[in-house]
Parts: sequence; structure tokens; C-alpha cells
Amino acid sequence: MTTATDRNAVSVRRELRATDRSSIERLLTATGFFNPEELAVAMELVDDRLIEGQESHYRFLVAEHRSRVAGYACWGPILGTAESADLYWIAVDPACQGLGVGRALLAEAERWLAESGRLRVWVETAGRPQYQPTRAFYLGCGYRIAAELESFYGPGDDKVVFLKVLEEND
Amino acid sequence: MTTATDRNAVSVRRELRATDRSSIERLLTATGFFNPEELAVAMELVDDRLIEGQESHYRFLVAEHRSRVAGYACWGPILGTAESADLYWIAVDPACQGLGVGRALLAEAERWLAESGRLRVWVETAGRPQYQPTRAFYLGCGYRIAAELESFYGPGDDKVVFLKVLEEND
Repeated sequence: MTTATDRNAVSVRRELRATDRSSIERLLTATGFFNPEELAVAMELVDDRLIEGQESHYRFLVAEHRSRVAGYACWGPILGTAESADLYWIAVDPACQGLGVGRALLAEAERWLAESGRLRVWVETAGRPQYQPTRAFYLGCGYRIAAELESFYGPGDDKVVFLKVLEEND
Repeated sequence: MTTATDRNAVSVRRELRATDRSSIERLLTATGFFNPEELAVAMELVDDRLIEGQESHYRFLVAEHRSRVAGYACWGPILGTAESADLYWIAVDPACQGLGVGRALLAEAERWLAESGRLRVWVETAGRPQYQPTRAFYLGCGYRIAAELESFYGPGDDKVVFLKVLEEND
């Protein structure tokens, strides 16, 4: 018997599989959030991981809901730094929004980051209205604004850099 | 006849040649500035350009003094932005310091950036004492501090982000 809770359960794995590729491309497109250049960059990171495996700089987490890919996250240590890491992407399938997929991905990413000694987590997002929910998400998850780079993306469109310092034994 | 001025002349070309590779590796090492990880990253960018040519994301400028490589710079447009570019590296052979090699590289890079419509130039450097001359160099060349990311590189070692907005017809 499947309870309502089970039916909404989200699981997160620290592994990117070749079969995830098309799901990720589909969900990124479905968000309507990314322009073609950004999509291409996102898929480059996916392909880098699929081709290079453990040698890749990029670590992926994949969230599943009812055995389907519901979202993913990607992070990487920042070379030449002691404890910093970039959290590059968290994307959630619009069909799965409201289930806590983003929070589940972020929580598991933070556990992985802390285990890897990467205690300073940097997230870059944009200042334009489209990203208001994104900014609210990170603020609500304990991130704070570390810097705002004016007109970084385009006239009036700032880059907003968030930081969270994790506990060593998180 | 070669005048003193000619003897100290620095020329800058917008072209990276395969024969520059060993000179660049040597001068980066000679600066004593970069740790092995940073050196590896710098050489990865060089190799990317040498292998991919015009397809590479990275644009190189090479300064010559008395027909020898005296320094180099590397920049790239920031994908997904309208006018932003990263100025990744300027490095000068310690044997050629004081000849204005850094300024010549920066001036030519800025001309190239402006011609390419990349009017917002971002430079990342570190807050630790070793980088004080670097920070003074950029401040003296019209850059201003846009952000300081605390302990980015390590405890107490901030990332300092500089910005210069170029004139369209620079």
C-alpha cells in the first residue's frame, strides 16, 4: 500500500547516469528559465561528468520522484581555494514543484559539501525579477548575500552572490 | 642604431603561438606567485587556445620585449551576459618588470574588449598581502573594487573583484 506521503516522497542520489541526460535537458527547457547559451553550458557540464566520470570537476545530485527525474543539482570545488565550492545549478521540473525537491537537493548537496571539507558554498544568481523566487529560496535556506555585481548580466541586471558557511560536522 | 627607448620597447600581439607555451610556463613559475593548482589551470587555458584556436573561449595577448616573451594576458567573454568579460590573467616575467609590460598588456586587452562590445571588465584577485601590488596596479589603471568575498580562498584570504566599465569607442 502506498500512503500519500510515500507518493510524494523525493529521493536524492549522488550519481549522474547516462539515462538522466535527456530528462535533465527536458526539465531545463520546461522551466523556461534558461536561454540557449545557458542551456548549452548546463548540458556541457552534464556531458563532462558523463564522459570524464570521477575525473570530472563537476559533482551531480539527481532527485527522483515516483522513479522519474524531478530535478538535479551540480557543484564543484573551487580550485586554488581551501574550502570554497560553487553550487552551479539547482533545477526542478516544473511538474514537480512544491514537493520540496529543491530543498532536498540543497540539503543533500550541503551534506556532501561538508563531508568534502568544502564549507564555504557560493551561489551566483541574478538580480532581475525572474530570479526573485530563486533569491528567496536561498535566503530561506540560510544563505546570505555576499556581493552584488552591478549590471553583470546586462544593463540593470546584477549578479547576486550568496554564501553559506557550513558546519564542519554538518 | 637602437636608442635606449627602442631597447626597452614592448610590443603586444593578439595571438598565442605554440612556441609561446614554454615561455609562458617558465615566466609563470618565475613569478613565484602561483601554486601548482593555479599553474595547472593557467596552462589548461593556454592549451585550450592552442588546440581549439578561434573556437576557444580564451583570448590571449602576448607581450614581447627584445623578441622574447615578456608577459601575457588572457580574457574571455562571460557567456550569458551582454557586455561582461573576465580578465583571467596578466603575468609578467620578473626579468621584465618595470618596463610597463603589464600596463601595455592591459591597455591592448581593453582595446580588444571594447572592440568586441565587452565593456564591463571583471578582474578577480586576492586580498592577501602578496597581491597588494596587483590590487594597486588595477586601482591605478581605473579599476574599482566591486566586491570582496570574505575568506574565499582560505581563512582570512578574501577574493577581491575589480570592475572597469570601458567606453564604447575606447
